[in-house]
Amino acid sequence: MPPMTTPAIDSLDTLRLRIREFAQARAWERYHTPKNLVMALSVEMAELLEPFQWLTAEQSQDLSPTQHEAVRQEIADVLIYLTRLADLLEIDLLQAASDKLAINTRKYPVEKAHGNALKYSNFSDD
Amino acid sequence: MPPMTTPAIDSLDTLRLRIREFAQARAWERYHTPKNLVMALSVEMAELLEPFQWLTAEQSQDLSPTQHEAVRQEIADVLIYLTRLADLLEIDLLQAASDKLAINTRKYPVEKAHGNALKYSNFSDD
Amino acid sequence: MPPMTTPAIDSLDTLRLRIREFAQARAWERYHTPKNLVMALSVEMAELLEPFQWLTAEQSQDLSPTQHEAVRQEIADVLIYLTRLADLLEIDLLQAASDKLAINTRKYPVEKAHGNALKYSNFSDD
Amino acid sequence: MPPMTTPAIDSLDTLRLRIREFAQARAWERYHTPKNLVMALSVEMAELLEPFQWLTAEQSQDLSPTQHEAVRQEIADVLIYLTRLADLLEIDLLQAASDKLAINTRKYPVEKAHGNALKYSNFSDD
Repeated sequence: MPPMTTPAIDSLDTLRLRIREFAQARAWERYHTPKNLVMALSVEMAELLEPFQWLTAEQSQDLSPTQHEAVRQEIADVLIYLTRLADLLEIDLLQAASDKLAINTRKYPVEKAHGNALKYSNFSDD
Repeated sequence: MPPMTTPAIDSLDTLRLRIREFAQARAWERYHTPKNLVMALSVEMAELLEPFQWLTAEQSQDLSPTQHEAVRQEIADVLIYLTRLADLLEIDLLQAASDKLAINTRKYPVEKAHGNALKYSNFSDD
Repeated sequence: MPPMTTPAIDSLDTLRLRIREFAQARAWERYHTPKNLVMALSVEMAELLEPFQWLTAEQSQDLSPTQHEAVRQEIADVLIYLTRLADLLEIDLLQAASDKLAINTRKYPVEKAHGNALKYSNFSDD
Repeated sequence: MPPMTTPAIDSLDTLRLRIREFAQARAWERYHTPKNLVMALSVEMAELLEPFQWLTAEQSQDLSPTQHEAVRQEIADVLIYLTRLADLLEIDLLQAASDKLAINTRKYPVEKAHGNALKYSNFSDD
């Protein structure tokens, strides 16, 4: 548990500042180039992939409490590194996601994309 | 641009609901098993890695406006899929990140981790 | 098709030399640090992951000719970058794989690993 | 060490058959769908990425013996899973790599690609 004096993290912006302090306190800033951070983020991403590799689709929808907590921690790691990377690049995460959803709304019109994931089921546009 | 009646996305929770509506409107829910989503997230992650692969550390800190916008869109994709996955697994992203930072604060004490990234510079604990 | 004078690639060692010549002819060697190459390999890996992301397990076993050819090209890219990386690090791929299989044979004894993929179905030992 | 009766692995084809026997002896074949194997391959790929994440380009070219052996084992894992995947999909690895190099030779002509990795330094064509 964090010390009692640490306020709760109630927004992405608070999370961003907390992570920044964490890195500064440990003098890790010199390691945190964008190039290194995208690599670290990829490593965390794979740790999130790992628990799912041998599961069936059905099993992946019905994780045990132990599996769920492990996945929860890996999801947290991905968000933490993503927030750190965005901070360094001065990117507003919510604004970026909002802009990308607007792009995707135009790119995947409801009538054409309906039920067709193989061609269209990407939020991404490439 | 989103239609004028769409309110701005000002929190992760609003983003989560907006993405859910996006998937529902396109009947993509049946494709959105956790197993499939971690794969899609990995693909997006690699698209974020790609622009950095041949850059030096210094170049990665000084992206051109075109590179920066491309990276911004890939970061957005990662956040969108991460939010979707967390929604399906009923995981609160901010709470998960907050809990993980508390774990890491204990795991990487400032005095031991100071300036030593090779052994310690992970927010992650494994 | 390669020029008629180029001999066929009939071994990993010939492949290794052919890739080395390819990189030398284009003066790409300065970009080919191990760090950059593992990033490039990760990007290629994700391009191999991509065609499978929305497929069911069954569909992944029954690819269309178009899907199969796309996958074949991505597998080739992964092997090409892996061979290039091993060449730079002076690692003999077949010897390394042979040594690892010996490690795994000890680590996953047949009687204990039989039919249990969730705990044991890794060729890898970590 | 493998039992004395096991012949040495002196080609990709021998490696392929040895891995097949390894999986059969452990009844892991039902887990080895192409979809699962590309996920496992991605996880191994990230384990190869991990030792490089905080290294400078220079450090990545001068690994310690311990680092080198760790990287060697991860490279072996990637080759093992790649060989297993290709076996299941009935893809000849050397032929696929050879065909891809021919495509790349046309795609990246020496005169245009010379020294320009940012635009051209991919063996891959996408």
